[in-house]
Amino acid sequence: MSVVIANIGQLLTIDAAEPDRPIRTDAAVVIEAGRVAWVGDAAEAPAADSRIDAEGAAVIPGFVDSHSHLVFAGDRVDEFEARMAGRPYTAGGIRTTVAATRAASDDELRARLHHLVGQARAQGTTTLEIKSGYGLTVADEVRSLRLAREVTAETTFLGAHVVPAEFTDDRAAYVDLVCGDMLTACAPYARWVDVFIDSGAFAVDDARRILLAGRDAGLGLRVHAGQLAADGGVALAVELGAASVDHCTFLTDSDVEALAESARGGGGTVATLLPLVEFSTKQPYPDARRLLDAGAAVALASDGNPGSNFSTSMPLAIALAVRELGMTPLEALAAATRGGAQALRRADVGHLGVGARGDAVILDAPDFRHLAYRPGVPLVRRVLVGGEAAQ
Amino acid sequence: MSVVIANIGQLLTIDAAEPDRPIRTDAAVVIEAGRVAWVGDAAEAPAADSRIDAEGAAVIPGFVDSHSHLVFAGDRVDEFEARMAGRPYTAGGIRTTVAATRAASDDELRARLHHLVGQARAQGTTTLEIKSGYGLTVADEVRSLRLAREVTAETTFLGAHVVPAEFTDDRAAYVDLVCGDMLTACAPYARWVDVFIDSGAFAVDDARRILLAGRDAGLGLRVHAGQLAADGGVALAVELGAASVDHCTFLTDSDVEALAESARGGGGTVATLLPLVEFSTKQPYPDARRLLDAGAAVALASDGNPGSNFSTSMPLAIALAVRELGMTPLEALAAATRGGAQALRRADVGHLGVGARGDAVILDAPDFRHLAYRPGVPLVRRVLVGGEAAQ
Repeated sequence: MSVVIANIGQLLTIDAAEPDRPIRTDAAVVIEAGRVAWVGDAAEAPAADSRIDAEGAAVIPGFVDSHSHLVFAGDRVDEFEARMAGRPYTAGGIRTTVAATRAASDDELRARLHHLVGQARAQGTTTLEIKSGYGLTVADEVRSLRLAREVTAETTFLGAHVVPAEFTDDRAAYVDLVCGDMLTACAPYARWVDVFIDSGAFAVDDARRILLAGRDAGLGLRVHAGQLAADGGVALAVELGAASVDHCTFLTDSDVEALAESARGGGGTVATLLPLVEFSTKQPYPDARRLLDAGAAVALASDGNPGSNFSTSMPLAIALAVRELGMTPLEALAAATRGGAQALRRADVGHLGVGARGDAVILDAPDFRHLAYRPGVPLVRRVLVGGEAAQ
Repeated sequence: MSVVIANIGQLLTIDAAEPDRPIRTDAAVVIEAGRVAWVGDAAEAPAADSRIDAEGAAVIPGFVDSHSHLVFAGDRVDEFEARMAGRPYTAGGIRTTVAATRAASDDELRARLHHLVGQARAQGTTTLEIKSGYGLTVADEVRSLRLAREVTAETTFLGAHVVPAEFTDDRAAYVDLVCGDMLTACAPYARWVDVFIDSGAFAVDDARRILLAGRDAGLGLRVHAGQLAADGGVALAVELGAASVDHCTFLTDSDVEALAESARGGGGTVATLLPLVEFSTKQPYPDARRLLDAGAAVALASDGNPGSNFSTSMPLAIALAVRELGMTPLEALAAATRGGAQALRRADVGHLGVGARGDAVILDAPDFRHLAYRPGVPLVRRVLVGGEAAQ
């Protein structure tokens, strides 16, 4: 089966092979057997079995959201409200969600997860990474990953999210567990291993042990670093060849240089920025301009989670990247699509070049820049996954 | 015909008659012949002809967006992109839109307007004020208001938006026109008259003449003031008993006191805040806390327009009010519903007390605070106008 997307007002393939032609007009796309088979001038489009009329709208690749935490129970709206009001809020943070998640049934977790994934899909996200990290026992981490695997191939073992309450007095024992039985049990359900490097979570030395153990178990590497301070995590991520280092809000000059050097070879470590977190926490935003100007590879992701940011809106992440991070609309779109794909070491998504998966979004706008120009307005009119209507 | 909204997780009637009970649980609402006929505990709900299952979600009044400019052609996305990048952009601003609007056919303007109103509706806006102001000739202002009247009763004559290019050298003649033939021709299509007080638009003395002429023509008064400086417009609005003074970003202490004093009597001048404008222009945000603490009446509106803000998202306006303006989520919701209604001198919308129009929004969230907690996520699941599904 083949389908042609016709009457496109503006086509952004975000194809790395065509960097000099970012915006096409009068273009059409043919998707066949789930893959982009042809891109070119509408007048020359080959015949297809069916036709989708874009009605003059902009067409972009589906978003690749390479960072989310969507397997959990409960919410933390009270904590959010207190934070916005500048009131102290001392209840448990991540551990609150860990307790709720452990107490929930599989069906409860699954229903919530499917609902959140559906919302993300409706906002144009067609590839979504999902982490564990609210279980923090062997059984609960396995359960989280098993559930996540039901909805995505991009699953990440994040047993090293925080040290759970029961290990407060023996952090080393928890790191042993993560590197040992927990990793062994989780690896079959995960593509990636990740560590949250932060003064309230794990130190760089812990992270090195966990990441190396994960690599030995066949997992790719991801790192949370630089959210609240320049903590050495970026250097570790680059040293170990992690696919992505996420947050990157606080960076030293040598961090920036390491990321840029890593990008020069291709296939290096992507700096994944998560501006919805700063929107929701009122922390300073990362500086995308500094990274881009140095030559680093940059991705945008949501970090949807119940604590530091409960938005899964890639369009709003783009609007914030343009307003706050120093990115142009085109850079922001590329970071939210091809950038996310690079951060997942995927060449088959995040663009609409020939051979890519037919994951496309038809906007309710004639120009892709409306994603930044019209913040909050639901501009995702139609989502295609493998050329077929999603949901 | 009657309908009961049942299985509500959280009901916010925003009913001024029940200030001590802002959030109800286990509640139901019955709408009969388009009006709220009954609110109470679900177990005691009277029989109705049909039933809407809220599935445990929060139910709120439809938003009352008391400030928008949605009759226009073209867009200004290039100007937006330049502004975000900090690049100078000297092309015409409002006058660019005036030229495009004058050149457009009725059908073009109508199609755009209906599309934008539909987007606002899908985001939960059930009452929408729309201004003219991109015509600035007698015929073009009449046309804008005639088109606006097709979609809302809340139409506002804003001939005094800017001085059009052809009157640059004779501003007084333009004010004469606005107060004379233009007003006479427009008044049949308008409920309100408005003036943009700003160093780039009209002075307080111009505004006084125009507002008094509008009042003589039977129109209610609205004012744009304090967007970029404390400009004397707030004092004028209060002095003349305007229903609303909009922007209020820059206020003197006496402005705040005048607004508070006006509110004490009831039916005074509402301070309408438009934080999507500051999001889109990077200007400082207004201080809602200062106004609320002084006792002023505060509304939130979108100011959807192609220049200073092209978002019509009342949910994002609420999120910004909580993040940036010092409002609690409940204050922000009330300002976006009952506050907007006060700014339009309407008692029949903006709340779900008995007798109100059955305009309600069923959220895709169990708690109304998710509007702020989950910015950008489309959380409007279902919109009822007069108890019936919108669109």
